[in-house]
Amino acid sequence: MVVEPTACDAALARAFDFLGKRWSGVILATLTHGAVGFAELARRVEGISDSVLSDRLVELQGAGLVIRSVEPGPPVGVTYALSPSGSALLPALQELTTWAATNLPG
Amino acid sequence: MVVEPTACDAALARAFDFLGKRWSGVILATLTHGAVGFAELARRVEGISDSVLSDRLVELQGAGLVIRSVEPGPPVGVTYALSPSGSALLPALQELTTWAATNLPG
Repeated sequence: MVVEPTACDAALARAFDFLGKRWSGVILATLTHGAVGFAELARRVEGISDSVLSDRLVELQGAGLVIRSVEPGPPVGVTYALSPSGSALLPALQELTTWAATNLPG
Repeated sequence: MVVEPTACDAALARAFDFLGKRWSGVILATLTHGAVGFAELARRVEGISDSVLSDRLVELQGAGLVIRSVEPGPPVGVTYALSPSGSALLPALQELTTWAATNLPG
């Protein structure tokens, strides 16, 4: 493993800026099943409140991981989907989750 | 990918409790090269202060990722090394770092 302390640290710190918040990982994982509307997403991410889901979606869009699409109506439809960058994150996130579930006592 | 929202979220949240802090990832990565003493570790993790390194090592020991060994002297020697759990984390951490370096603008 090549260690490049400064670059690695800065990159990890940027990742943890938003991944460190609860629900971010679950939202991204849930979006692997395809684009969905807000209400459906809220239903699938069991236990999240609408306001927290809304906040997280804004953050994930800001980081370029989630794309919000507005389809002209009527009725107007808004859907959320993973960007290519968001899709690329999922294997690492899955690996990290598996490690945490195994190695960090709950 | 199987989504288990509650379990995944709790596991990720625990991981991010300490991984989200700056330097944690770099310290773990640096320890892949083998057990080292504090001064040598401080030298290798370029830019970290002694007090921050000390704090992080305590946290990483508390999470069971780093093992602190005292070798009876004289002189007494203290070394830090990855635990099996800490070693198991590195592939995921490396993957996440690579993703962040590619996908999150610096």
